[in-house]
Amino acid sequence: MRVLELKAASGNCKLLIGESIERVMEYCNAKKVIIITDKNVLQLHGHTFPKCEMISIDSGEGIKTLETVEIIYERLLELEVDRSSIILGIGGGIVCDITGFVATTYLRGIRFGFVPTTLLAQVDASIGGKNGVNFKGYKNMIGAIRQPEFCLFDFELLKTLPESEMKCGFAEIAKHAAIGDASLFSYLEVNYKEILKLKKSIIEKVIYDSLKIKADIVAKDESEKGERMKLNFGHTLGHAIEKTVGLPHGKAVSLGMVLAANISAKKGLLDKKEVERIVRLLENVGLPTKIDFDKNMVIDAMRKDKKRRGDEINMVLLKSIGNVMITKIKIDELEAMIHEPDMC
Amino acid sequence: MRVLELKAASGNCKLLIGESIERVMEYCNAKKVIIITDKNVLQLHGHTFPKCEMISIDSGEGIKTLETVEIIYERLLELEVDRSSIILGIGGGIVCDITGFVATTYLRGIRFGFVPTTLLAQVDASIGGKNGVNFKGYKNMIGAIRQPEFCLFDFELLKTLPESEMKCGFAEIAKHAAIGDASLFSYLEVNYKEILKLKKSIIEKVIYDSLKIKADIVAKDESEKGERMKLNFGHTLGHAIEKTVGLPHGKAVSLGMVLAANISAKKGLLDKKEVERIVRLLENVGLPTKIDFDKNMVIDAMRKDKKRRGDEINMVLLKSIGNVMITKIKIDELEAMIHEPDMC
Repeated sequence: MRVLELKAASGNCKLLIGESIERVMEYCNAKKVIIITDKNVLQLHGHTFPKCEMISIDSGEGIKTLETVEIIYERLLELEVDRSSIILGIGGGIVCDITGFVATTYLRGIRFGFVPTTLLAQVDASIGGKNGVNFKGYKNMIGAIRQPEFCLFDFELLKTLPESEMKCGFAEIAKHAAIGDASLFSYLEVNYKEILKLKKSIIEKVIYDSLKIKADIVAKDESEKGERMKLNFGHTLGHAIEKTVGLPHGKAVSLGMVLAANISAKKGLLDKKEVERIVRLLENVGLPTKIDFDKNMVIDAMRKDKKRRGDEINMVLLKSIGNVMITKIKIDELEAMIHEPDMC
Repeated sequence: MRVLELKAASGNCKLLIGESIERVMEYCNAKKVIIITDKNVLQLHGHTFPKCEMISIDSGEGIKTLETVEIIYERLLELEVDRSSIILGIGGGIVCDITGFVATTYLRGIRFGFVPTTLLAQVDASIGGKNGVNFKGYKNMIGAIRQPEFCLFDFELLKTLPESEMKCGFAEIAKHAAIGDASLFSYLEVNYKEILKLKKSIIEKVIYDSLKIKADIVAKDESEKGERMKLNFGHTLGHAIEKTVGLPHGKAVSLGMVLAANISAKKGLLDKKEVERIVRLLENVGLPTKIDFDKNMVIDAMRKDKKRRGDEINMVLLKSIGNVMITKIKIDELEAMIHEPDMC
């Protein structure tokens, strides 16, 4: 096991990389532990959970609402959860997002920790402190930023994941490498097959390196005033694609990264060969790199992006693999660019 | 005008003591300003508001719910409020509490400022960063902690307040003096009549001194792990009384302070003469100092206090006027003590 400490304005988070869920109670340090999980995760991994009270929600993006949050508040009241208790979110990104929001707002904030059970949640959703729910069809419209006390990453939990889920997680690892670590990117190019097969020594190194990139960025700029925007590489367009086409997050981010890399090249920032390396890695893994739907819908969705400021949006472009810049782009300009041939 | 800067973990807040609401736009510094207010405040003070979009809610504690919060989220979406906008809460404690929670959770946090319009909101609810709403009959059960960028205190706005509202605000000023500033307490004993009459030079000094005590405490311990508990003097029992009997907050805190002072004396911490000074000041102002209802109900409510930890609760006791200590008390012990004669 390797440990990373994320030190952010809202608090510190211990990242326990390669720890076993069977030791999770050692980190809870509370008389009353309440698990929040979903029914799928409960069925697959319930036998590994510590013995304590549990709130189990349905699975899927449709459950990520304020109604679910209220149901959980009520249950916490019934269970007499107070500030000496801790909430433990065990599940994928949706469980982590909801748990984080509940723990941040119940009694104005009580202690919480995560055991992410998907690769995507392990390398992205569970760390960084962002939480929240969807509202009126807008993703993550309502939420807050607060760090869990710990995140426990048990790779055994990933063994039940379908291959497509593994690929989606890989997209975020590729993003971390692209924005902050050229040598990790090269390592991914060589080792992607072993990563998808969850070879222990390789997955531990890749997740550690990937989390290190994100943790360093979040430590510098938790509330996303500057540095943290780097993590949106592939996401500005990716979120719009996800919303419009209903693609899974990782696949949408894959397309978003290809678009952002091509825009970087068009603007003369990035060598075309680097774009090809990105496209090849994503293709090798089996992630989509070509858009086969109406791009106009994507632009419409962008105009409602919560990161929009007036008629401009911040966009993360690559100068080289491992090195990014943040620039403001008018949505009209973006619209013109993504309609050019060979963009994606 | 006098300015205080509150520097806390979640951000800094400028306290503009004696500034005019007519200059509030100078502090907003945003293209889009959205006012959140209530219908009473709008009727009384709407003519002094800057020209901008407005969301007006009903008045009263009953409106402090997640339903109201959702209605406001929807309106913010319609108004295309983004992270370059600022929300301005103009009103009493309820408006400030709701505005702060909305601004903390909409888009995971956007900028906000307050113009508190009651004495109670000016000396207490608007500063310190605590926000939130009631849930299933429990006060402030759901909320978060985040500082507004500024609080503008215009004493002209207090001129429309009923006398009973002024007295309620006075209770929190008396609390601040009791926990942290013996000379302010003496000043209140001499000048309470002029304070209630809003004599400009006196009210500015008293509010400045009162805010300084709270701001210093919040700066040291925003998330209430230790030091900030001092601000709960009179509130542990006060909240239970407020909930049980339906007394206004200030009046309940007045009774809570008398009980806490008497408990301090019973435990040999506080001279009985100091208890008498507290009781006399509150009586002179016209605040209640004698309980004329069933004390058992108060204890029942205490068992559901969100600050309870197991079967104990932290209680703030006085060693002298201006000097407090925090101690854990078993709820059973508290129950026995408040039933003793002459406690309140």
